[in-house]
Amino acid sequence: MSANGLGFTLLGTDGRARRGRLSTAHGMVETPAFMPVGTAATVKALTPDMVAATGSAMVLANTYHLMLRPGAERIARLGGLHEFMRWPGPILTDSGGFQVMSLAALRSIDEDWVEFRSHIDGARHRLSPERAVEIQHLLDADITMVLDECTPFPAEPADVALAMRRSLRWAERCRHAFRERPGYGLFGIVQGGVDADLRAESAAGLQAIGFDGYAVGGLAVGEGQAMMFRVLEATVPQLAPQRPRYLMGVGKPDDLVGAVGRGIDLFDCVIPTRSGRTGQAFTRFGPINLRNARHADDPRPLDESVPCPASRDYTRAYLHHLVRSGEILGAILLTWHNIAYYQALMAGMRTAIAEGRFAAFAAAFAADQTRGDIDAL
Amino acid sequence: MSANGLGFTLLGTDGRARRGRLSTAHGMVETPAFMPVGTAATVKALTPDMVAATGSAMVLANTYHLMLRPGAERIARLGGLHEFMRWPGPILTDSGGFQVMSLAALRSIDEDWVEFRSHIDGARHRLSPERAVEIQHLLDADITMVLDECTPFPAEPADVALAMRRSLRWAERCRHAFRERPGYGLFGIVQGGVDADLRAESAAGLQAIGFDGYAVGGLAVGEGQAMMFRVLEATVPQLAPQRPRYLMGVGKPDDLVGAVGRGIDLFDCVIPTRSGRTGQAFTRFGPINLRNARHADDPRPLDESVPCPASRDYTRAYLHHLVRSGEILGAILLTWHNIAYYQALMAGMRTAIAEGRFAAFAAAFAADQTRGDIDAL
Repeated sequence: MSANGLGFTLLGTDGRARRGRLSTAHGMVETPAFMPVGTAATVKALTPDMVAATGSAMVLANTYHLMLRPGAERIARLGGLHEFMRWPGPILTDSGGFQVMSLAALRSIDEDWVEFRSHIDGARHRLSPERAVEIQHLLDADITMVLDECTPFPAEPADVALAMRRSLRWAERCRHAFRERPGYGLFGIVQGGVDADLRAESAAGLQAIGFDGYAVGGLAVGEGQAMMFRVLEATVPQLAPQRPRYLMGVGKPDDLVGAVGRGIDLFDCVIPTRSGRTGQAFTRFGPINLRNARHADDPRPLDESVPCPASRDYTRAYLHHLVRSGEILGAILLTWHNIAYYQALMAGMRTAIAEGRFAAFAAAFAADQTRGDIDAL
Repeated sequence: MSANGLGFTLLGTDGRARRGRLSTAHGMVETPAFMPVGTAATVKALTPDMVAATGSAMVLANTYHLMLRPGAERIARLGGLHEFMRWPGPILTDSGGFQVMSLAALRSIDEDWVEFRSHIDGARHRLSPERAVEIQHLLDADITMVLDECTPFPAEPADVALAMRRSLRWAERCRHAFRERPGYGLFGIVQGGVDADLRAESAAGLQAIGFDGYAVGGLAVGEGQAMMFRVLEATVPQLAPQRPRYLMGVGKPDDLVGAVGRGIDLFDCVIPTRSGRTGQAFTRFGPINLRNARHADDPRPLDESVPCPASRDYTRAYLHHLVRSGEILGAILLTWHNIAYYQALMAGMRTAIAEGRFAAFAAAFAADQTRGDIDAL
């Protein structure tokens, strides 16, 4: 860990894929890493012990949700977010910008702040770059994200440019507001939509300010995997290799493998948790939906290659029964398995990069996924 | 364990309270014991490991629910209910009679069977005494309950008598249908409403047939605790002391203490699990509702005297946040705590009986409960 800020050690590369280690105030994170999403100070449907048992080192929490309920000052009084949610490891918090745009009502944005109404009770709130940093400080986030203005996809290039440049000015205000402490860091967020020039301008502007890491934001909003990968191919080489790179809100298993192969170190996504509450399980032979009647008599586990009780100890027949019956245990077990599957995939990529065989790993992964789940017995 | 049927050893008494040990094909149960309810082959919101960690030795499952979904024959093909739900310990199954009366539609009852429509899909089903025993055999229940006809409260004495006598005839048919195996047993169910003479007639009739244990059914249906205790005081002394006694569907913590003091050995109830999904927690100082705003800043755990992570490791402020936010983890933690609280209470009663101080234990319990939860900080 550096004397100031967050530590990141690049341990090796394999093509553009990187093997690294992040040092935070609350522990180490081996990268590439996937962060389960703990929106409202809970990774939905799991206890913290279950999350830790999947091999997850760091989780993400949402500034927008927590500022509205239970409130950042309240969490600070209760000892900070780690203590509040009983997660002793590192926590990254997003800035709230994305949720304000996607969830809140009556939002208006100007140079100073974004104003919006809570989706919970309609109360009026303001979020400025300085307040976004202050909230994340109150939460005691190991990694704080700058407040940015997200544009939808598709959007007019002129609108994307305006939002990107405002985000740059906000990033600088966040940099000034952030209080440096050992083991804590602030990440900038590269915006610019699907335009390579705007992305390059954003990356250069952020690096001129200087951050502990750089996120690629504004992707996985409908542009499709091929375009997302093209944006990564254009953007990631613009980022200094000695800083961690975080692809926000992505993705499905093949998105992760493709993005690691394009130089990304950190991920978060609601897909494994949300899918776990709707009956979908990810396996090494592709996703399956446990609601489907073909699983009703299937005595096989979900995926015995995943080191998790939910993946190995329960039959698909039982999981089908739980999902069909609307039982909470169905959501618990499928969420637990999905996170464990994601972490097993990340661990496999880390080992493959360290051993210089990432390309072969990615090819075998794709072949397994394409094969699809074998027929029910 | 006796060569035939279930083993029950009466280890000691303290007043009318009893300390015993039940031996089943899937393990021992120290009594007095509380069985968490696993209606649809899951104790709602908990993994089997969490249930076991509370000190629960035996769980209950519901014939009615499981015959409709996923089906008893299916569970048998998958290795029986223990394997299906990954609960290696003893399982008691009810006969389905109570749920047919409370949940199913268009039911008709005659001497042969009860006919009803599924509350899930409207499909027509029949349940006879023989089929109820067969289903429980397919499930591989350690303790099978006879099919009985439950009467509502209040009911005309003549109707109660008719139902009780039909239940006696059905009990005899169940006895004939039941296949004895070491470690497996069949319990009769004493009916007769709140009429002491009918209860006595039922108890005598059942004991003339001969069962491995005797349940008191038809209580906790609105008659109130005082009347329930009067029925127990009249009925329990009619039951042979060498057999276990099971009070079905009861109850709140003070119901359990009062019933143990009246000679009951076994309990099941949905209250701790259902309450856990509606924000209610039981503590040694009485129940509290975590939805209440007074818990929003309370850094105390639910009840540090209960040996469960959910009882000790999380603040009431966090649990309040989870409940208000509708988070599944709120249901998980409150259910886990409630079951653990119930099991700690049962363990306390078992120790008190063994040490000849049950009356003092019950008095201290009542004083603590009456005190109520202390004010928020």
